[in-house]
Amino acid sequence: MPTYTPPLRDMQFVLHEVLNVTDHFQKMPAYAEVDADTINAVIEAAGQFASEVIAPLNVSGDTEGCHLDPVTHAVTTPNGFKEAYKTFVEGGWPALSCDPEYGGQGLPHTVNQCLYEMCNSANQAWMMYPGLSHGAYECLHAYGTPEQKKKYMAKLTSGEWTGTMCLTESHCGTDLGMLRTKAEPQPDGTYKITGNKIFISAGEHDMTENIIHLVLARLPGAPKGSKGISLFVVPKINVNDDGSLGSPNGIHCGGLEHKMGIHGNATAQLVLEDANGTLVGQPNKGLQAMFVMMNAARLGVGGQSLGLTEAARQGAVAYAKDRLQSRALAGPKHPDKEADPIIVHPDVRKMLMIARAYAEGGRALILFTSLQIDLSLHSPDETTRKRADGYVTFLTPIIKAFLTDNALMSTSHSMQVFGGHGYIKEWGMEQFVRDARINMTYEGTNTIQSLDLLGRKVLADGGAKLKEIAGLIQEFSEQEMKNPAMHEFITPLAWAGEKLNKITMNVGMKAMKDPDEVGAVAVDYLRICGHLIYGYFWARMASVALKKVDSGDPFYKAKLITARFYFAKIYPEISMLVRTIEAGSATLMEMEEDWF
Amino acid sequence: MPTYTPPLRDMQFVLHEVLNVTDHFQKMPAYAEVDADTINAVIEAAGQFASEVIAPLNVSGDTEGCHLDPVTHAVTTPNGFKEAYKTFVEGGWPALSCDPEYGGQGLPHTVNQCLYEMCNSANQAWMMYPGLSHGAYECLHAYGTPEQKKKYMAKLTSGEWTGTMCLTESHCGTDLGMLRTKAEPQPDGTYKITGNKIFISAGEHDMTENIIHLVLARLPGAPKGSKGISLFVVPKINVNDDGSLGSPNGIHCGGLEHKMGIHGNATAQLVLEDANGTLVGQPNKGLQAMFVMMNAARLGVGGQSLGLTEAARQGAVAYAKDRLQSRALAGPKHPDKEADPIIVHPDVRKMLMIARAYAEGGRALILFTSLQIDLSLHSPDETTRKRADGYVTFLTPIIKAFLTDNALMSTSHSMQVFGGHGYIKEWGMEQFVRDARINMTYEGTNTIQSLDLLGRKVLADGGAKLKEIAGLIQEFSEQEMKNPAMHEFITPLAWAGEKLNKITMNVGMKAMKDPDEVGAVAVDYLRICGHLIYGYFWARMASVALKKVDSGDPFYKAKLITARFYFAKIYPEISMLVRTIEAGSATLMEMEEDWF
Repeated sequence: MPTYTPPLRDMQFVLHEVLNVTDHFQKMPAYAEVDADTINAVIEAAGQFASEVIAPLNVSGDTEGCHLDPVTHAVTTPNGFKEAYKTFVEGGWPALSCDPEYGGQGLPHTVNQCLYEMCNSANQAWMMYPGLSHGAYECLHAYGTPEQKKKYMAKLTSGEWTGTMCLTESHCGTDLGMLRTKAEPQPDGTYKITGNKIFISAGEHDMTENIIHLVLARLPGAPKGSKGISLFVVPKINVNDDGSLGSPNGIHCGGLEHKMGIHGNATAQLVLEDANGTLVGQPNKGLQAMFVMMNAARLGVGGQSLGLTEAARQGAVAYAKDRLQSRALAGPKHPDKEADPIIVHPDVRKMLMIARAYAEGGRALILFTSLQIDLSLHSPDETTRKRADGYVTFLTPIIKAFLTDNALMSTSHSMQVFGGHGYIKEWGMEQFVRDARINMTYEGTNTIQSLDLLGRKVLADGGAKLKEIAGLIQEFSEQEMKNPAMHEFITPLAWAGEKLNKITMNVGMKAMKDPDEVGAVAVDYLRICGHLIYGYFWARMASVALKKVDSGDPFYKAKLITARFYFAKIYPEISMLVRTIEAGSATLMEMEEDWF
Repeated sequence: MPTYTPPLRDMQFVLHEVLNVTDHFQKMPAYAEVDADTINAVIEAAGQFASEVIAPLNVSGDTEGCHLDPVTHAVTTPNGFKEAYKTFVEGGWPALSCDPEYGGQGLPHTVNQCLYEMCNSANQAWMMYPGLSHGAYECLHAYGTPEQKKKYMAKLTSGEWTGTMCLTESHCGTDLGMLRTKAEPQPDGTYKITGNKIFISAGEHDMTENIIHLVLARLPGAPKGSKGISLFVVPKINVNDDGSLGSPNGIHCGGLEHKMGIHGNATAQLVLEDANGTLVGQPNKGLQAMFVMMNAARLGVGGQSLGLTEAARQGAVAYAKDRLQSRALAGPKHPDKEADPIIVHPDVRKMLMIARAYAEGGRALILFTSLQIDLSLHSPDETTRKRADGYVTFLTPIIKAFLTDNALMSTSHSMQVFGGHGYIKEWGMEQFVRDARINMTYEGTNTIQSLDLLGRKVLADGGAKLKEIAGLIQEFSEQEMKNPAMHEFITPLAWAGEKLNKITMNVGMKAMKDPDEVGAVAVDYLRICGHLIYGYFWARMASVALKKVDSGDPFYKAKLITARFYFAKIYPEISMLVRTIEAGSATLMEMEEDWF
C-alpha cells in the first residue's frame, strides 16, 4: 500500500506565494484574523488526520466494502470507518469552514479545501460521508427555513449527523425532469414522500445516529419536466421539536450497489414510503435549491480527483525510486546496484511528470477557485464579490470535468509505473484508477459539464464570463512580458487564447444554424479551456519560482521544470482539439441509428 | 450483462472485400483449398461458440474468480469454465490453425484470428487458457527437440493439455536478465529446476490433466544478464516415454494474485523445487526461443483489446438506443416516447464512434498482419515471405501498444455511455475496462513496445522496415489519387507520412547525441505510426465502400462515415504528437531524483 505524505509545502506555496491568500483574507471582516501561521497549523493537523487516521483504511475499506442487513436495513461500513469518523468529529473537522452561528469555526473555504484534498488522497470512499454532508449543510444554509435550520444545522456542522443528496432514480439521472418520487401535502404543512432513489452516496451507514436526506420529488399537479421538481428534507429518524430523536421515518435502504470502486462508500437504493418531509425553498424550484449543493459537489468531485492524482503520483514516485530494473540508456546511473531504479528511464519520468503537472496545476486552480468562493461570500466590495462569483461559475464545470478526466490518465500512468505489480490489489495502485473512474460520471457526467460550460456559461452568456477569465490572463501576461525569462510561458498562453477566441466565435456562429454543433464540440472545448487555465497557473507558478530559483531550495527548480514540462508535453493537446473542434458535428450526426 | 453478437459481416468485409484473402491463400499450397465458404462457415461456428458458450460466463467468472486450495495446491476455475473448455476441445478449436503433422486442422492464422477475436470479446479471462497454450505450441513447434515434439505437440494441438510461459520473477519482469531461477544439469541430460515465478497466467487450473510450462532459468556458470538465460519445458505432471502421465513434477502453485480484472484467469505464483525439465533450443539462447511465444503473445494481447473494444462498443450501442433521457438539441427525435434515446446526443455518438473506429480499424490491421504471418510461413515466393515477415516484425509492437491503449479509452467511453449504471458491476461494462487495463502492461509494457519499435525496428534497422510500410501506403495512395472521391482520405495520409519521415530523421539525429531521446519520444512515435497505419486501412476500407455505397446496403454508408469520423476526430492526435516529440527529452531528464 503506498504511503501518503501530505503535500504541505506545495499547498503553502500556492496559498502564500502564488495566491497570497492572507492579503485577501485581511480585507474580509469574516477572515481578517486568519493569518499564515493559523493556516499552516490547521493544514498540518489536517494532513496528520488524513495520513494517520484514514489513509490506513483505504485498501482495507476497498476489500471489505459495505454490507446491508436485509432484515434491519442497517448498513455496516468497513472496519475502522466508524471510529475514524468519530475522531474526525472530535477534532472539529466537519465544522472547519462552517458558519459560527451554527457552531462552525468560520475558517475560509480555501483552508477547508486543503483538508478535503488530503482526505481524498487518503481515502476518497471515506471522505464522501462528510463531503456530501457538507453539501447538505450548504444547501440548507442557503435555502432552509428557520425551523429547518434550527433542527439540522448545528448537528450537520458538528458532524453529529450526516446529510445526503437524493436525486437519481433508476430511469433518470441526467434528465431529472423525468423523476417520479411524489410528495403529498399534509394538513400540518409537511409532506408524505414516496418513491425510489438509487445511487445515493453515503445513503445509509453506521457512523451517525441520524442522516438528513435532501430529496427531490414532485408535488401533486406539478408542471412536467424539471420545472415541476421540489426539494424536501427527509431525516432518517424524525427529529422532535426539542431536537431529540423521535421515531424512524419511512425511508430505508433497499439495497447497496456493487461497484467498480469506492467500495468503502455505501451507494444506497433508498425506498421512501410515506416518509415525512418538509419543503426546502419554493415549490417547483427544487432544482435551483439543489444546485447549491450540486455546485459544491462538482467542485468536490474535482477535489477528489486532485486527491487521487496526488496519492497515486506519490506511490509511483516511491516505487520508481525503489524498483531496480535495467540500466539507463545513457549508461548506468547507479553502478553499485544490480540495476538502475526505473526512475532513470525517460518514459517512466514522463508518466510521473504527467501526474505531477496535473496534480500541482489542479491544486493551484482549485485553491484559486476556493479563494473566489470566499471572496464571493465575504468580500465587502460588491464588484469583487460579483467577479469572484463569475469566476466560480465559469470554473466549476472545468474543475469537475478536466480534473477528473486527467485523474483517470494520471492514476493509470502511476499504476503503469508499477508494471504488472500495479494490477495487483495489494499494492493499492489499481484502486486509485477504479476510484477515479466514478468522478468522471457522478454529479453530472463530464459531457454534461462541457454542455454547461459551452452552452450556458459561454454562448448563452454572450462570452461575458469567458472575457473575465481572459482578462485575468491578459493582465498577467502583459505584466510578465516585461520579463524576458517569462516569454517561454507567456507565448503559449497568448497562442491558446487566440485559438480559443476564434473557436468560440466560430462555434457560436455554427451553433446558430446547427443545434448539434455545441454537443459535438463541447467536450473538446472544455479541455482547451482547461489547458489554457492550467497554462495560466503554471505561468504564475513559474513566475514565482523564477524569482526564487537561486535561493538554493530545489523546490523552485522542480517547479520550473514541471512548468516547462506542462507546456512541452501536455499543453500541445490543444493542437489536436482545435482540429477536432473544427471538424464539427458532421461525422457524428450522419449515421442513422440503425447503422450503429 | 451486454449481449454479444459476432461481427461476422465486418470480418467478412475485411477478409473478402478489403484483403481478398483467398487470392493469397490460393497461391500457398498449404491453404490452396481454403475458400470463402469454408472461412465463412468456420467463423460463423466460432462466433456461435464465443457468444453462446463463453460469453455467458464472463460476468460470473469475474465475480467468482479462481480459488487455490492451500493444501493440495489445486486451483478451481469459475463455475462453467471447465465445461466450456471441454466443449472447445471437442469442437476442435485449439487445433484450428495447428500443423496437420500434430493433428492440427491446418487453417490459416487469419481464420484463427477471427476465432480469437470473438472469444476475447466473449470472455478474455477464459480465452487466456487456450491462448497461452497456443503460444507454447508455437514455441515448441519452432524450437522443440524431436522428443519434446513427440511428447507434447499432439496434446497441445488437441487442447488435451494446456501450456504456459514462465518468465517473470518478483524482482524482475521487464529486465529478464536479472532472473534467478536455476537449472542444474543431470547425468541423463535433463535438468532440475528451482526457483519462484510470479504472474503466470493460466499457471494452474482444473481444466486439463496436465500443464506444459515453458520456463526461463539459468544454467550453472551462465553469463550474467539476458545472455545467460535458457528455456526449459517443465510439465506439471511428468510424462512417460509412452506418452502416459507419470508422477507429479516438482512444481506447484504457491498463490494466486488478487487483481484488478481478468479474475477468471488464474494468475499463479509457481514454486519450482527440483522440477524436471528439458532444454528447449540452445543453452543461453532461451530468450530467442521464448520470443517466438512472446511475439505471438503480443499479437494476441492486441487481439484481446480488439475483442474488448468490440464487446464494449456493442454494449454501449444497445444501451444508447434503449435509454431514454432528455431531448435531442435539434428537437425531439422520438416525440412518441417520454424522452429521446441518448443515441441522439452528439457526444454519446462520439463515444460510440471512437470505439467503433478503433474496433474496425484494429480488426483490419490485425487481420492484415495475420495474413502476413500466413504469407511469411507458407508463401512459395521468398521475397513475399521476407517482406511479410518484415511487416509482422514492424507491426507487432504497434498492435500490442496502440490497440491496448485505444481499448482503455474505448471501453471507458463505452462504460461512460451508461452513466452511473456503467460503474455498477452487474451491467458488465466496468469489467471491460478492468480487463482491458492489463493488456497495456503484460507481455512487455507499452513503453517497452515503443522502445522496441523506435529503437530496434526503426533506428537500428536504418529505417528499412519503415520504408517497406511507407511503400505500401505510397503505392496505394498513388493509385487512389486518380479517384477524386478518395482525395479526402489520401491527403491526410500523405500529410502524416511526411511528418513521420521528418520526425524519424530528427529523432535519429538527436538520438546520436542523446541516448535518452529515444526513450523520451518512443511512446508518442508509436502512436503516430499507429494512426498512420489505421489511416491507411481506413482509406482502403473507404475505397471499397465508395464503390458499393450505392448498392443499397447501409453497411457501406456506415463504413464511409466511420472512415470520415476517424480522420476528423481521432487522427488529429498526430498534430499533438508531432509537437510533444519535437519537445524531446529536455523537461524529462532535468529533474533530479530527489526532487520528484
